[in-house]
Amino acid sequence: MPHPLALCITPGDPAGIGPEIVAKAFAQAPDVLRGCFCVGDVALMRRASALAGDGVAQLPVAQLASAGAAWDAPPRCLPVLPLPGAELQKNTDSLSNSELFAHIPYGILAKNSGKFSVDCVTWAARAALRGEVAALVTAPIHKEAWALAGVPFAGHTELLQSQAALHARCSVAEMPVRMMLANEELRTVLVSIHLSLKDALAAVTHDNVLQTLRITHASLLKILGRAPRIAVAGLNPHAGEGGLFGREEIDTINPAIAAARAQGIDAHGALAPDTVFMRSRGFARFDVVVAMYHDQGLIAVKYLGVDKGVNVTLGLHDGQGRALVRTSPDHGTAFDIAGQGVADAASLIEAVRQAKRLLGWPD
Amino acid sequence: MPHPLALCITPGDPAGIGPEIVAKAFAQAPDVLRGCFCVGDVALMRRASALAGDGVAQLPVAQLASAGAAWDAPPRCLPVLPLPGAELQKNTDSLSNSELFAHIPYGILAKNSGKFSVDCVTWAARAALRGEVAALVTAPIHKEAWALAGVPFAGHTELLQSQAALHARCSVAEMPVRMMLANEELRTVLVSIHLSLKDALAAVTHDNVLQTLRITHASLLKILGRAPRIAVAGLNPHAGEGGLFGREEIDTINPAIAAARAQGIDAHGALAPDTVFMRSRGFARFDVVVAMYHDQGLIAVKYLGVDKGVNVTLGLHDGQGRALVRTSPDHGTAFDIAGQGVADAASLIEAVRQAKRLLGWPD
Repeated sequence: MPHPLALCITPGDPAGIGPEIVAKAFAQAPDVLRGCFCVGDVALMRRASALAGDGVAQLPVAQLASAGAAWDAPPRCLPVLPLPGAELQKNTDSLSNSELFAHIPYGILAKNSGKFSVDCVTWAARAALRGEVAALVTAPIHKEAWALAGVPFAGHTELLQSQAALHARCSVAEMPVRMMLANEELRTVLVSIHLSLKDALAAVTHDNVLQTLRITHASLLKILGRAPRIAVAGLNPHAGEGGLFGREEIDTINPAIAAARAQGIDAHGALAPDTVFMRSRGFARFDVVVAMYHDQGLIAVKYLGVDKGVNVTLGLHDGQGRALVRTSPDHGTAFDIAGQGVADAASLIEAVRQAKRLLGWPD
Repeated sequence: MPHPLALCITPGDPAGIGPEIVAKAFAQAPDVLRGCFCVGDVALMRRASALAGDGVAQLPVAQLASAGAAWDAPPRCLPVLPLPGAELQKNTDSLSNSELFAHIPYGILAKNSGKFSVDCVTWAARAALRGEVAALVTAPIHKEAWALAGVPFAGHTELLQSQAALHARCSVAEMPVRMMLANEELRTVLVSIHLSLKDALAAVTHDNVLQTLRITHASLLKILGRAPRIAVAGLNPHAGEGGLFGREEIDTINPAIAAARAQGIDAHGALAPDTVFMRSRGFARFDVVVAMYHDQGLIAVKYLGVDKGVNVTLGLHDGQGRALVRTSPDHGTAFDIAGQGVADAASLIEAVRQAKRLLGWPD
């Protein structure tokens, strides 16, 4: 009987902690990582595995010939599929890949690193959309490295949205996505993500809020098996306190909530931003909080520690009704501790676990 | 030997939980409340004391003739100084005060309630500035009730700033204040408070950030007995990620931090807003986080529960070098549970404790 598709993990920026936490995840949680592989570079992951060897047995790298081979990789190894295609060679100024990746300095921004990390994510997204891998779990990239490499996307989410729209032959506007951050006591979905706060304010429109509520409802319905109870944060202090500190709640957010409720969505608010997260802890009153901008939601969900949080992209699909599942750890490249062997793989392991749940795989 | 000055507690909006938590504080923590009294109305506080009687002995109200009499009030009582002056009579449409306050409906916005609560705070502020009470602890007012009553201040802080400036014979601009929220593991000082988020963005100027750092440094120096280590949050996601998502960090916040450091202030940043609070938990790395707007700081400090938080106004003084100490619980009027006897006095008790520490009184 053939195996199901394998789950693809991208290594993130090679100068950050991404490769190290990927190697550690395979070493520390082999059962969770069963059926997973890393796309990228063998020399890079060999260096990462050496870092991960402190306190746990260092895993040998097993080079895969194809994504499907992940299920047949030997036990207690780090299965790596070298990034298919000739992308890397174009960017390495005559160094071979192994020379490049065995010596890439930790904690340094580089165009090559940006190019490598974006190529890995792009390949994985296309493979998932073609039905060749089951889902993506993405280790942290560095957005400035992407900018150096000329990548026209602010982050993973925007790139995945673009790839999914391309595959589904629709416009990016017809492939609306939202970022959800989740830990063991709180879920939050963001109306906007990688915008300046000024631009994020302008993005709080009736349509964006309503669309966020629709995506949140549809995605959580699938995850929970029932309609989610959605708390909606206001934009202003005290949710505007009746219009005293801003009118966006009255003019935009409350009408969008009313429109969502008319469509059968169990949305509540707008609620005071400074207490809605505290009130939603533990899922007793609400299953998820819709936040009006990046930090409103992320300050709360990260407060207990980034090692607990998982990022889930909601709304991606292939145009034929199949969701593109993508999760990631809720932290960055941590250039300040890269290469020291001290990075914590807990959030990445949790991201793999969540992706498997979204795929319906057993725990 | 004469007693020190007494500490004045204002009851907040009479339709909210303020009077109830004041009565409960005296009932539940008599040692902490020693030397404190409530300004306001005897009938109102008698009703509040009846609410507070569930599970703890109901305290009789002791009517004081002056603030100084608080130290001589009998033990196990609720000492109340009727609001001096004839302000109330002007607003009660021929009802006597007792008729009004014994029957004021819970959970209903009213102009009379706004007028009563603002008059209590105004009297207490003036008494403190005149040197007749030691400090203020303020129970929650309702800002919409203040607006109904025509009060030209968005909240306590703005009113106190205005009163202090009047007393010190300076302009409000020469009496800059900042709100600090503190719980057992985090302190945060806000660049701005009761502004719409749009207006709060415009308030992130070099001068406002630098002034916040100066006030934070001077106030925490006094509280901690040493220079505080100050973390400064950025404004934009990822603190702008090198200018990709907004330039306020590069153009405004980082230069203000540099100017503060040049003055000997131990300020660090701008740091990513979504992780700076998590990184500052427990005071191991930083003593305080300067937040760029209301919810940035308050989402974090309230996340663990509003019963733990205390609000401290930094920067108020009488013009002769004496600080005006004011603390308050970190929650609102809670109209939804007012009158039920279920309100939690923990934050108010903690606010009294913090005020006494700021005054140098023994715990």
